Amino acid sequence: MKFIKMHGAGNDYVYVDGFQQDVHRPEELAVRISDRHFGVGSDGLILILPSDCADARMRMFNADGSEAQMCGNGIRCVAKYLCDQQSDRGSQLTIETLAGVLSVDVTADTENPAISQVTVNMGQPRLQRGQIPMTGPQQDQALEVEIRVKNRTFTASCVSMGNPHCVVYVDDVEQFDVAYWGALLENHPLFPERINVEFVEIISGSEVRQRTWERGAGETLACGTGASAVTVAGFLTGRTQRTIRNHLRGGVLTLEYCDDETVMMTGPAEQVFTGDYPWPEA
Amino acid sequence: MKFIKMHGAGNDYVYVDGFQQDVHRPEELAVRISDRHFGVGSDGLILILPSDCADARMRMFNADGSEAQMCGNGIRCVAKYLCDQQSDRGSQLTIETLAGVLSVDVTADTENPAISQVTVNMGQPRLQRGQIPMTGPQQDQALEVEIRVKNRTFTASCVSMGNPHCVVYVDDVEQFDVAYWGALLENHPLFPERINVEFVEIISGSEVRQRTWERGAGETLACGTGASAVTVAGFLTGRTQRTIRNHLRGGVLTLEYCDDETVMMTGPAEQVFTGDYPWPEA
Repeated sequence: MKFIKMHGAGNDYVYVDGFQQDVHRPEELAVRISDRHFGVGSDGLILILPSDCADARMRMFNADGSEAQMCGNGIRCVAKYLCDQQSDRGSQLTIETLAGVLSVDVTADTENPAISQVTVNMGQPRLQRGQIPMTGPQQDQALEVEIRVKNRTFTASCVSMGNPHCVVYVDDVEQFDVAYWGALLENHPLFPERINVEFVEIISGSEVRQRTWERGAGETLACGTGASAVTVAGFLTGRTQRTIRNHLRGGVLTLEYCDDETVMMTGPAEQVFTGDYPWPEA
Repeated sequence: MKFIKMHGAGNDYVYVDGFQQDVHRPEELAVRISDRHFGVGSDGLILILPSDCADARMRMFNADGSEAQMCGNGIRCVAKYLCDQQSDRGSQLTIETLAGVLSVDVTADTENPAISQVTVNMGQPRLQRGQIPMTGPQQDQALEVEIRVKNRTFTASCVSMGNPHCVVYVDDVEQFDVAYWGALLENHPLFPERINVEFVEIISGSEVRQRTWERGAGETLACGTGASAVTVAGFLTGRTQRTIRNHLRGGVLTLEYCDDETVMMTGPAEQVFTGDYPWPEA
């Protein structure tokens, strides 16, 4: 089975072109191929498939075999691959995900063909506690709320981008103990379905530094929906402008919270290598 | 640049066939290609090269770009690859390493062509403190010595297999805090060049369970020279017989401390996938 290894800001997946080959038992394949010592090694498996309503459909499987709705870093790589395959396609295309059909726009890097910059329309945030979900008055927003954990009180803003995020502002994010406080906030009783936690240091009104604690996964190098939530929370609480550069551990994303309330995310998609993994066809 | 990803008991390397292509700047390549998010992901890079005095020569680079002398799990994979490439070669061959020319013997797995069992002559142990190196009377051996660390006293036996090992016996190795005690023993003042630490639980006279703390690398899934040192220490202290099965985290090795004092190690070598990584030729 041919595959392509790509990453978006350090969020790395094995991609398989389902236009050219059938992929048998993808849940089992995701578990095996994601193993970083006994498999190819990745955050998961993404299948690039034909779609009835878009240029392509992506199915994404986490390293534990569970299917995920969407991944902002993954969809950029899918878009890059499709453009690389069919150069006559043009730079704008649509990709069907479990979170709906998303529009993407690909700009090739003229100096390095392995890298493209891709802009994704990440949709509109949902701000009500009931939509996140979060306990308390279900119609209310949860911006600039205080959350008490152990002996410490955090100022947080909670935003759903299809998945739930708790944005927490800290002074020095590099030195911050993300693993300790991330695990405590993830499992705080305020969040019945747990929550992803984004720890953010404000550099200026147009620049932030983010570290990501992902629900069930721990600290990761990047999170596209998390970076989108940070953009929305920063603007709505008066900390940052509508457009920011966000420095994540695995790379830099540029984000805009537009007037129509959609979030546009631009970042790199990079092909690392191609391979052939033994996996029986159906 | 074509490569093969293989592992021996979970110790995984990127292998490049230097008979077929030149590899430019291998130290830099090792750093890049070993990265588990931005590269192929491995414990390091191994080049399979022509030799003037053996069937092939292996050069091994750690993930930090430094060149290593030898790797018992790596040499098994080199041997498997050479046999797979040239089926008329026969199962016995010699491989030149920085630790000398070693003899290997390959047995194909008839049910799974991805896996072979390979026996390697690991050479003779060196037992004097000066050879390990270790402080104290330089001609003396360090078998069954007590080492005091913090509030705990370990019974240890120190053996060099070309690299230094401290074999420590514990009651329940699965529950043992390898990271904490491993780091303390590695840096104990007894060992001027630090030391690899093997924590061993005796299951019977012919079976042990081992966890490995590698100097500069932390806990790893397997260590072939460490498993050899455990075999020697176990026999010389009367704990185990000359032949043992050793259950490491990444797989099982069979070892024999022979009458001529060489250690023969038998274990799996498995091809996981093949790939193509962009790297300029010289």
